[in-house]
Parts: sequence; structure tokens; C-alpha cells
Amino acid sequence: MTTRYEAYADDIRQQIAAGLLRTGDRLPSVRQACAARGISPATVFGAYYLLESEGLIESRPRSGYYVARPRRPARPEPRPAAPKAEQLEVDVSRLVQQVLSQARQPEIVPLGSAFPSPALFPLDKLAASTTRVLRRLQPQRTVEHLAPGSAELRRQIALRYLAGGSSVTADEIVVCNGAMEALNLCLEAVTEPGDLVAIESPAFYGALQALERRGLRAIEVTTHPRTGVDVAALARVLDAHPVKACWFMPNFQNPLGCLMPDEHKQALVALLAARGIPLIEDDVYAELYFGRQRPRPAKAWDGDGLVMHCSSFSKCLAPGWRVGWVAGGRFAQAITRRKLSLSLGTSLPAEEGLADYLAGGGYERHLRRLRETLCQAQTRALRLVCRHFPRGTRITRPTGGYFLWVEMPAAVDALALHRLALEQGIGIAPGQLFSADGRHTHCLRLNYGHPAETPDESIRRLGELACRLHQGAAPASRPRA
Amino acid sequence: MTTRYEAYADDIRQQIAAGLLRTGDRLPSVRQACAARGISPATVFGAYYLLESEGLIESRPRSGYYVARPRRPARPEPRPAAPKAEQLEVDVSRLVQQVLSQARQPEIVPLGSAFPSPALFPLDKLAASTTRVLRRLQPQRTVEHLAPGSAELRRQIALRYLAGGSSVTADEIVVCNGAMEALNLCLEAVTEPGDLVAIESPAFYGALQALERRGLRAIEVTTHPRTGVDVAALARVLDAHPVKACWFMPNFQNPLGCLMPDEHKQALVALLAARGIPLIEDDVYAELYFGRQRPRPAKAWDGDGLVMHCSSFSKCLAPGWRVGWVAGGRFAQAITRRKLSLSLGTSLPAEEGLADYLAGGGYERHLRRLRETLCQAQTRALRLVCRHFPRGTRITRPTGGYFLWVEMPAAVDALALHRLALEQGIGIAPGQLFSADGRHTHCLRLNYGHPAETPDESIRRLGELACRLHQGAAPASRPRA
Repeated sequence: MTTRYEAYADDIRQQIAAGLLRTGDRLPSVRQACAARGISPATVFGAYYLLESEGLIESRPRSGYYVARPRRPARPEPRPAAPKAEQLEVDVSRLVQQVLSQARQPEIVPLGSAFPSPALFPLDKLAASTTRVLRRLQPQRTVEHLAPGSAELRRQIALRYLAGGSSVTADEIVVCNGAMEALNLCLEAVTEPGDLVAIESPAFYGALQALERRGLRAIEVTTHPRTGVDVAALARVLDAHPVKACWFMPNFQNPLGCLMPDEHKQALVALLAARGIPLIEDDVYAELYFGRQRPRPAKAWDGDGLVMHCSSFSKCLAPGWRVGWVAGGRFAQAITRRKLSLSLGTSLPAEEGLADYLAGGGYERHLRRLRETLCQAQTRALRLVCRHFPRGTRITRPTGGYFLWVEMPAAVDALALHRLALEQGIGIAPGQLFSADGRHTHCLRLNYGHPAETPDESIRRLGELACRLHQGAAPASRPRA
Repeated sequence: MTTRYEAYADDIRQQIAAGLLRTGDRLPSVRQACAARGISPATVFGAYYLLESEGLIESRPRSGYYVARPRRPARPEPRPAAPKAEQLEVDVSRLVQQVLSQARQPEIVPLGSAFPSPALFPLDKLAASTTRVLRRLQPQRTVEHLAPGSAELRRQIALRYLAGGSSVTADEIVVCNGAMEALNLCLEAVTEPGDLVAIESPAFYGALQALERRGLRAIEVTTHPRTGVDVAALARVLDAHPVKACWFMPNFQNPLGCLMPDEHKQALVALLAARGIPLIEDDVYAELYFGRQRPRPAKAWDGDGLVMHCSSFSKCLAPGWRVGWVAGGRFAQAITRRKLSLSLGTSLPAEEGLADYLAGGGYERHLRRLRETLCQAQTRALRLVCRHFPRGTRITRPTGGYFLWVEMPAAVDALALHRLALEQGIGIAPGQLFSADGRHTHCLRLNYGHPAETPDESIRRLGELACRLHQGAAPASRPRA
């Protein structure tokens, strides 16, 4: 299935390839394109953002979009992984935590980080909000503050669902200690140890860790690097295996950055509803879209309450505050009970501080700036990876988030690259972290969300190391300067 | 085993009973008693606090202790429950959460609450500390802030262990989202679903909920209302059953308020060490002692790293902040890994705010005032329960914390009393919440930690309702005024 904006982008790509549109030509204005093709402004913007992220066109402030100067031939996107549809035991958390803790030291260039740069967050305004609410806090609130959490914060979150076109009420929202706790509680609500859970391939390592924690088995589903979970492949897995739940990231998946088209999300929800299988939807990157509007969650098509939609403020506003939530559908009560047994509630200063900040109205302005910064940073990172990584490297071009997935030639071992890079003060997230059976050995996740702290130099050096590994001539290990 | 201060208290009790000491007589000063008996000031104070809590003696400011006017004959203490040493499935969380949520409404007199009055906490100073740390927060801290938690907070906590005579270093401390998360993580670190865990009788309902969450079975151990877990009874349980871990509260147990003498703690740790069984020590009330010094945790005698000592700031400083911790001994690494998988970290503003408050030095002053308030509130509550509850009622006289355990005549059903009391705007915690098999049906936990919000009138009315239930003449249900 192709969305309208992808179809429009394809047309322009062909016109450029055919020479109808040439370097420096101005593309139709949004108004012209809408009138000419009978499409919406959102579709036009979606197509233009996509082409811009591919480097085919460029925007000029207050002027419009133009065909860009041809660069070195763009690298192709990775091919979808073809997981073996085996039921896998999960035992990754030691490796994950070892690798991530090495790459997390403050002096290490954070290309392996899971967060965008903290310099991009309005920490001063959050501090002011927290100060304000603590000054006027009713003492009684401190002992009443239990799951499902602050009424005002849940109202603010529900308002954002409303604005995004999803009918989620405050009643089904449970505030949690970050999205990770929410996701773990969802798993507990719908599985027993030993059950089988379908995940993406590659999968977010946090999902693997959560499965391991509960003693669950994983089955990986073919995932397209641009359009996400292959719904037909999922149907075949469900036919053959006793899957108890799915854990997917339809919007800007970690690590691929892929975005499921709305029609795919709808098909996914319908497929699962027909079989009564719950969907745990991890949606922590959706606010970081580069297109015209926030992509809708799969939850938007959920008529049966089977979708548990999890998100947080950790990736777009307040890392460290540890405030996330789940809109739990028919499982909201069960999740609340489990949250009470596990940790009673979430931290009051953080919840109330965020509620005050959201009510203040500056959030959208902050998000607009953040998206713009990340979109520009992606363009730069893509250019550098294209230029410096070994021949045969493939790269994703996500339309949101802050990760690139880089598929190097098969001979390059990402864990070896991780070790070499670390010696040069550069952190990466090697592909081995993203599956239950240690595949993706020649891939890496690259964080471009630290534009000020990741000099072009670091990606160039990383590419050189990858080239040397590719040529079988890894440099002798030497201490970092 | 009897501790020295109990032995000294016994002597004085006998002298009063024998008429050697009479109403209004002055007791030996601390110096005189030390010199006469060769005991320490701590022992003398311990004995005097105990006798004062029993109403046998009273202190007069700047003068000393005097034999008090005889009151109505004091109620005896409850007898130890005799659990059946059966392995029990646990399924209490619905009942617990239903009963507690009813009793938690702000207009209900909080005799069933799990917290002391929030008016007793220095919330303004905590707010000032949190404001201060957020103003100078390094942005980088927000994305580095993961388990095991803030280095400065862990240092402050380790300093308190040091001051209390326990050798716990910051390295084994994992900051958690309240003690509940810490306790749950400990369970996960040392058990698999289906395993058997030894608990007290009656047991803290939070322990029952945590066992239920992990699919564990419980076995209850005889627990003395004054001296806690019966170590000999525990040894017999361990001989007969495959116990994987123990979850006990040696200091001011919830709900009994009992305090294990040091010798018993030492015997407990030795017994478990000999069999390699881990102890999960829930120690959230220890700071609320009425004697001369903080009772030591069982962890103080732990030479093998088998004791996981869990505590928090929720009951003595900052409810709602949701900051607790575990000193995890040999399991600290495993607990940190599980914390990372479960919720990554604890809330940064709360952790750093508390670290700043603790470094400021006002904590001890606050605790002294809090202990004094609670000790006085207990005396008042004891007098009222003695006066108004049915003949045959037995009551604990804890030397710390803020709970009384009231054992009414067997005919009084505590759940019925809970429903009647709720209609009159009074909350209680009925005994049924405190065991896996619904025993303690005629008992209740009574919170005396809200001196300003629980007028004498409410205990009087509660006693009247219990009397009517006892006489089989429950009043017709009528709406609250």
C-alpha cells in the first residue's frame, strides 16, 4: 500500500529522474499542487518533507521548494529483515546494559544514545512549573497521590489525544514511571510467564528486556524499513503460533524509524481484533514527526479496547522526570491495580510540574523547534554516512525521530565496530542489541539528535573504522587521546 | 528472649503491682538507675518509654518520670496468631484496593490510612530544596539519570546507615520508585513464579499484593505482637517447606508495630545464612521510634550479603515523592539490571530535591518532632480504645510507628465494622487485608498518626459500633450526615 503523499513524492522523483525537473527548478507551491491534483496541503507537505529528507529537493526560506543539486548517488534503504518465525527465548539484558553503559559516559560522543540532546529541552521552564506547583501544593495531595495519577496531568494528556483525533478519555489513562513501566505493566496485564509475544525485526531492545524480565518468548515479524510491520506476514505468524500479545511501534520505530501508513495501522488493528489479541503500542517518538501532522496511533482505530497505547515525555520534553503513561483500553483497571502493587504511584513533583507546563501552552512551540532541529540534523547525518561509510552500506531515511539504521556490508561486525569506536571516544548502538537471536550483526543505530555534541568529524571517523573492518584491516587497538 | 530494657521495665511493673511504687512516686533518675543497676542510659530510657506507652508512668517536663494514676485496667496485648503453616495461593489485591480506596476519600477520618498526617512533613523545605536543584541542574544529568540513581542521594543514604552503625556503602544502594518498587525488585531477583515466600502473620498487605503479582505462594510464620517473628517457629517452617525467601519487617511491623529485639534479629540472620535463604527486609518505619535510638535493621548482622534492606522517605519525610531504596547486598547488581528493564530510573527532581534536603541538615530536627508527636498521639489513641471498645478487646502498644492493632472479640467482623464506620465517615483497615487466607476477621489496624484530623470522637464512635456488632445489635444502616 502506498499513501497519497508517497504517491505524489514518487511522481516528482520520476520527473527529476527523467530530467523534466532540473537542479534549481522551483516545485509547485502548496496551493498550486493542491489545486492541480485535488490533494490536501498535508499530502503535499508530506511529499516535500520526504523528498527533502532524501536530499532530492531543498526548501528556501520564504520562497518554496527547489530541486537540489545532485549529490553522490544516495545509498539505498536496507532490505526488510527476514526473521525465521521461530519462538525464541530472550536473554539480552546483560549485553544491552553492558554496551549501553559503556557508551553512556559523558565524554563519549553520544551516537549510541537513546535520547536527543538535553540541550534541546526547555528545562528552565519545567523547573519554573515545578517550583510553582510545589509552592502551592496542598499537603493532603501528597498522601492521596496514587495510581492512576494526577487528575490534571491525565486531563492534559487526554486533551492532546483529542487534538490528535483519537478518542481517549482521562479515565483510561494511567500515569507511570516512564513509558517503560507502562509497557511492562501492559505485558503483565495480558501475558503469563512462558507466553509468546510478537515483536518487530529489528526490535527495540527495551521490549526484549521487558520480555526477558517476565520470562516471555519472542517471535519476530518481518518489518519494512520504511512502512513498518508487514501485516500479511504477521497474519501468517498468528496462524502458525499461539501469540498472546503484540508489542509494536507503528510510529518512527526504534531502531528503524519506519512509519506504518494509516491503512496498515487500520489493517493491523482489524487483524488483531478479529483474533482478540491485544496490541501494546509503544509510541514515544510520534511527536517528533517531520511531516505536516502528528501521525495517528494504531489506537485511533481501536474499537474494542484491545490497544494499550503507551507514551511518555522522556523523548520530547523531560528526560529524567520519568513520567509516561498508558491509555489502557479495556485493560486500564487491571493496569492500575498492578501499578498500585508495583509502585503505588508516580512522583508527584514530576507529574504536577509537567501538568502545569502543559497547561501553560508553550509545548507546541517547543515541539516545533525540536522537530525542525532534528530534521536538519538528519539531513547532515545522512550526508556524512553516505560519504564516509563503506560501499554497499544501506541507510534508512526516517520521516521522524532521531535514529538512522545503518546496514553495513555483511563482513562488518557491529560489536567490533562498537569496541573500536569506543576507543576513539565514540558511542554507537550495535545491531546485536536489537534481536533475540543476535542477528543484525552488521547494522548499527546512529543517533543524530545531538547536533551540537556530535561533530561531523565523529561520523567521518566512524565511517573510516567501518571501512577498515570491511577491508579486514582493523587498526591496532590504541588508547583514546 | 527479653532485652535489657524490657527486663528493667518488668521490674518496675512488678514494683508498681506490689505497691512498692505508688501513684505519684518519682522513679529513679536516669543517672541513678544507671549507677544502681549497671545499665546504660539507653536501657533506662527504653524501659521508661515502654512503661509510659503502657500508661503506667508519666513524664513531667524538666522533672522526671512518675508513677501514673491507675486508669481503667489496661487492655492485654493480642495473642500471637497461630498460622497453619500451609502453603497459600495469594489473591487479595482486589479486596485490598477496594477497601483502601473507599477509606481514602478526603472527607473520611483517616484511621485506616497507611500514612501519617501530611501536615507533619516539612513540605515547604522540600519544595525549596527541589527548586534549588532544578535551578542549577546540568542538562546532561537528565539523560544520564538512570538506575542505580543519584550519586549524591545514595551518598546521603549511606551516611545515614553509617550513623546508625550499619556498614552499607553507596555501591549497593539502588534508588527506587518508593520502597514498594524496591521490594518488588528484590522478590524478582530471588524468586521465580510459583516459589514459596515466608511472611509474618498478620502480614503487610503490600507484601501479599507483591507476592500475588509475581505468582508466588505464601507461608505465614507465627509473629509475636511485641517481639515479632518467632525465630524458632520460622526454623520449623524452613525444615518442612521449600521456602525461597523471607519478607519480614523487624522494626515496627505493619500492622502489629512489633519490634524484634536485637538478639532475635541476629538469630534470624544466622538461621537464614546457614540455609542460604535471602531476607527481604522491609524497614520503612524504623525512623519513627519512641525509644532512645533508632532500632538497628537485621541487615546490621548480615555478613553474607543475603539481606536486602528496603526503606523509603514516604512515611517519615516525603510521601508522594515516591523515593525509596534498597541496600541489595549480593543482589545489588541483579536488582539494578531489573530496575533498568522495568523503569530505567527514578524521578530526577524528587531524587535530587531529597538529596539537597538531606545535605541541609534539618532532617534530624524534623524527625525528633515527628516522633514526639506520634508518641503522644499513641497515648491518646490507646486511652480512647481502652475506654470505648468492647470488653475482651486486646491492643498492641508499639514503641514506634503510627499503627495500633486492635483485636476485638471474635464475634465482631471487621469488614462489617469497616462498612458501618464508612457510613459514619470513618475509615479503618480491617484485619482481613492482612493475610492470604482471610483470617484476622475480628482485628483492625488503627492509624493514630493524624492527631489533628482524627478527633477523639471518631475513635469513640468506632468503639460504639464495635460494641453494637459485639452485642449482635448492629444499628440500621443510615446515611452519613
